[in-house]
Amino acid sequence: MSPRELSEPAGKVRLFVEAALGDGARVVPDDAQAHYLLHVMRAKAGDRLSLFNGRDGEWLARIAEVSKRNCTLVCEKRTRAQDETPDVWLCFAPVKKAPTDYVVQKATELGVCALQPVFTRRTIVTRINEERMRANAIEAAEQSERLTVPEIREALTLDKLLRSWPRERSVLFCDEGGDAQPIAKAAAKIETNSIAILTGPEGGFDPAERDAIRSQDFAVPVTLGPRILRADTAALASLAIWQAIRGDG
Amino acid sequence: MSPRELSEPAGKVRLFVEAALGDGARVVPDDAQAHYLLHVMRAKAGDRLSLFNGRDGEWLARIAEVSKRNCTLVCEKRTRAQDETPDVWLCFAPVKKAPTDYVVQKATELGVCALQPVFTRRTIVTRINEERMRANAIEAAEQSERLTVPEIREALTLDKLLRSWPRERSVLFCDEGGDAQPIAKAAAKIETNSIAILTGPEGGFDPAERDAIRSQDFAVPVTLGPRILRADTAALASLAIWQAIRGDG
Repeated sequence: MSPRELSEPAGKVRLFVEAALGDGARVVPDDAQAHYLLHVMRAKAGDRLSLFNGRDGEWLARIAEVSKRNCTLVCEKRTRAQDETPDVWLCFAPVKKAPTDYVVQKATELGVCALQPVFTRRTIVTRINEERMRANAIEAAEQSERLTVPEIREALTLDKLLRSWPRERSVLFCDEGGDAQPIAKAAAKIETNSIAILTGPEGGFDPAERDAIRSQDFAVPVTLGPRILRADTAALASLAIWQAIRGDG
Repeated sequence: MSPRELSEPAGKVRLFVEAALGDGARVVPDDAQAHYLLHVMRAKAGDRLSLFNGRDGEWLARIAEVSKRNCTLVCEKRTRAQDETPDVWLCFAPVKKAPTDYVVQKATELGVCALQPVFTRRTIVTRINEERMRANAIEAAEQSERLTVPEIREALTLDKLLRSWPRERSVLFCDEGGDAQPIAKAAAKIETNSIAILTGPEGGFDPAERDAIRSQDFAVPVTLGPRILRADTAALASLAIWQAIRGDG
């Protein structure tokens, strides 16, 4: 729901809703969505928009029964069948508020399936606003024409993350260390399509953390080249590269 | 010169300078660099830092002759030989002020060799601050341990860009159109290592512009997958993918 949509016809509005979608299904948008539709976009009864809920594909819906505060949307026609998002998680050490917003937005556009904040020893951020992350993810999903919204996981310490890891899922560990292999090479070779990308905080993982990660057999240390990337750049570059080589890019 | 460096020892400071570097070469930093060194980092005579100029590799230098306002740096030892940055340009339609800063920073980290702003019919931005772009590029080069700073080109209209294009350089044209091939496939096939990535403004290229680009034999239309990416996401994803598959990633 960014300003750029202001110039778009109401027919191009896409909203994520929780309700079931189907022929003739009636959906009441939440307060923020109703405000956006009726007062920002100035939509009227009879205008059309798209709805998705992560399960039932994308539906063209008509605005019906407009009141001052809200309206009802009626599903008319399915315009896209539900698809599958590639099974890629992003496990990232949060750095600062603005970059986390940015990482969530970009990772959603790039088709991430779950976002997992991780606290490491050098992580300075102590609280994660999962609500805010989810709002950012929904907005990016609406704008990027995704049919799903990535799952926002509760933040975990690195230690807990490693102990509870589903061992059949490989982890592309973005590491500056010596023997890490180039990411494109690693991506081409990994056997499973269920992976996670793991990136550290701005100061990197500490040596004990690096050892702990590298000792896991699900961890695949990878390098992104000779330059030192910021944490958010590394996360997004890895995701883009995986999607291009193994995902739906 | 970001706040995160405040906690780093002065020995990790890296500065880009214009002056020639070599054994015993004396360099006077500019006013902003001197302020940063002496007042932000509180460096003293005898402290060491790294210098690079895009030509002579990286040098360890010692701070000598400190005055209130400035100091002299003396090159002591070459720590890295000059390397070559992959020959990738990014031609991008600027969108808003903050995103251009972001694109410059990220593209520099990802090893872009030249940044070319392009005005298209749907570009809303009318002025480009090349000085500011260059300052951002220098800062990102310092922090990412590059040995070069990307060239900042003067903004051109799309029309002029196409007319003056060096025809042996292929253009990965980020296109939402039907028959564009997946970028990883295109990257693997392109014969030349001299390429450019071309991305449009937030509303995309207009149909006449798309036709004009597609009619060029140096243009290779590529897609980044089923999602609609923001202009800056498309630019950075493309660059990361090219570097991983064909560059130095």
